[in-house]
Amino acid sequence: MSGALFDRVALIGIGLIGSSLARVLRRDSKNTVIVACARTAKTLEAVRRLNLADETTDDPAAAAAGADLVVIATPLSAYAEIGRKIAPALRPGAIVTDVGSVKGVVIRELAPLLPAQVHFVPGHPVAGTEHSGPEAGFAEMFQDRWCILTPPPGTAPEAVQKVRAMWEMAGMRVVTMEAEHHDKVLAVTSHLPHLIAYTIVGTATELGEDLQSEVVAYSAGGFRDFTRIAASDPVMWRDIFLTNREAVLELLQRFSEDLTALQRAIRFSEGDWLHDVFVEARATRRGIIEAGQDTPAADFGRHGALPHASGAPARDET
Amino acid sequence: MSGALFDRVALIGIGLIGSSLARVLRRDSKNTVIVACARTAKTLEAVRRLNLADETTDDPAAAAAGADLVVIATPLSAYAEIGRKIAPALRPGAIVTDVGSVKGVVIRELAPLLPAQVHFVPGHPVAGTEHSGPEAGFAEMFQDRWCILTPPPGTAPEAVQKVRAMWEMAGMRVVTMEAEHHDKVLAVTSHLPHLIAYTIVGTATELGEDLQSEVVAYSAGGFRDFTRIAASDPVMWRDIFLTNREAVLELLQRFSEDLTALQRAIRFSEGDWLHDVFVEARATRRGIIEAGQDTPAADFGRHGALPHASGAPARDET
Repeated sequence: MSGALFDRVALIGIGLIGSSLARVLRRDSKNTVIVACARTAKTLEAVRRLNLADETTDDPAAAAAGADLVVIATPLSAYAEIGRKIAPALRPGAIVTDVGSVKGVVIRELAPLLPAQVHFVPGHPVAGTEHSGPEAGFAEMFQDRWCILTPPPGTAPEAVQKVRAMWEMAGMRVVTMEAEHHDKVLAVTSHLPHLIAYTIVGTATELGEDLQSEVVAYSAGGFRDFTRIAASDPVMWRDIFLTNREAVLELLQRFSEDLTALQRAIRFSEGDWLHDVFVEARATRRGIIEAGQDTPAADFGRHGALPHASGAPARDET
Repeated sequence: MSGALFDRVALIGIGLIGSSLARVLRRDSKNTVIVACARTAKTLEAVRRLNLADETTDDPAAAAAGADLVVIATPLSAYAEIGRKIAPALRPGAIVTDVGSVKGVVIRELAPLLPAQVHFVPGHPVAGTEHSGPEAGFAEMFQDRWCILTPPPGTAPEAVQKVRAMWEMAGMRVVTMEAEHHDKVLAVTSHLPHLIAYTIVGTATELGEDLQSEVVAYSAGGFRDFTRIAASDPVMWRDIFLTNREAVLELLQRFSEDLTALQRAIRFSEGDWLHDVFVEARATRRGIIEAGQDTPAADFGRHGALPHASGAPARDET
């Protein structure tokens, strides 16, 4: 035993999240052996070049063999195949966790594939940037962010505690909740906003060529924030919408109704009503600031040490 | 004559934009006399405390008297009344400009009120933050941003040139275009995004109390970007939507159609189609980065010297 939280960690998928976790382990748990698994030779070559792992492989089973922690950090659509491949290789007592943005589907589709003597602790570190791949990761990405664990009823508390301790080592605030509840909350805070960002960027690009080039040129408005959101990994987002379909569709319906109400108010020049809606939105913003989710303390980005940070300035041009 | 670009500048309205311009003049045009006009004693007191003007008044006519440049920097709904008040006080040859986010309405409603010997150069410095009031301004806000001037046909070129020179002094890239075209471009880059941000924040706050508090707590996702946009001045935005109604409504219709298409694709699990849409959105993002609207050079915010900068980090948690 090395005295580390985990002696041997298998990272199945080593993109933005997986590689950031590797960097945390390199920084804070030097005795942990890291095995990185990726599909492509290019990714594995990058992992070796960046010294993010002690061993690399394209075989999930080989990665999982002998690991006391397996972290699945691929798009959700790859989970079932990975589950089938690693199941026979997992040693009794091993912990399997993941970092997926939707949790109900993981419990429904991955958990049944795992052997009974393995602990399954689904997790969602709510952290990231719009960039992808092992080069884009950095250890500080998790700092002061939330990590939501959704262990199914009956999960061994020691296993949950060990996964919690790892994310706390990464600087995260860890909470547990039911998977279904997680999926509803994230549909609001993340999935619907991204869907809308994709839509508005799409709408803009469908405008006539002339207008489009000017839209790009003068995009120093709200539009820029949307494009940043919409630059995230397309595969990851496809999988999120397909796996959290019910919650997203219900919310989308509410959103459409609200937007139609605003549209009508503009059409009929109902200024007072518009004003009230905007005042209320501002109050919600204040609630978020008071909840401490947007403080300079949480904003490592402005220290400028991170070349990948696109550095969206806090400017909101009209 | 002081040798300054303008000897006497009247700022009618001295909130975020007006006070930032005052700071630019203080910094770069020390011989210019600045007269600030605001409705409330509280704002005028702040202006004096911050030394943003040489004279203060709540009477637009008094402010405009003798000025060689009058800058209207109030919400759009105040323009007509201000136009009527300043018209008799303007000296021949004076230049009147503004900073409003919609330009067609300004030319339709303000221009006819002004005397023939006055030059009218409508303008839109596309810069700002989600904060309001004279305390929120700062001279660097305009740096490297676009300023769009929409002089009506027949405007004296010398007058346009002087307004252009002022915004260039503020660090802006100045272009001219037709007012109607401006309003279409800004409907895409700014007005629709803000309307959607207001809607999504409203939709979220209408959720049940329990979910709502969690949405606020875990808002470190795309939702946070939306709330920042939605925190902008409610009066200003009400006026923008009412005055750029046609362009906004047409665009909103297109957006709703596109959103409905995505909704349908999610409902019927059309993963390939979703993926294609997301890939295209990412390409638009790249176009914007290449157009230089999101470079670190334009990001003064991260230098951390500005206490009002909320410093939204370039993190886009899923």
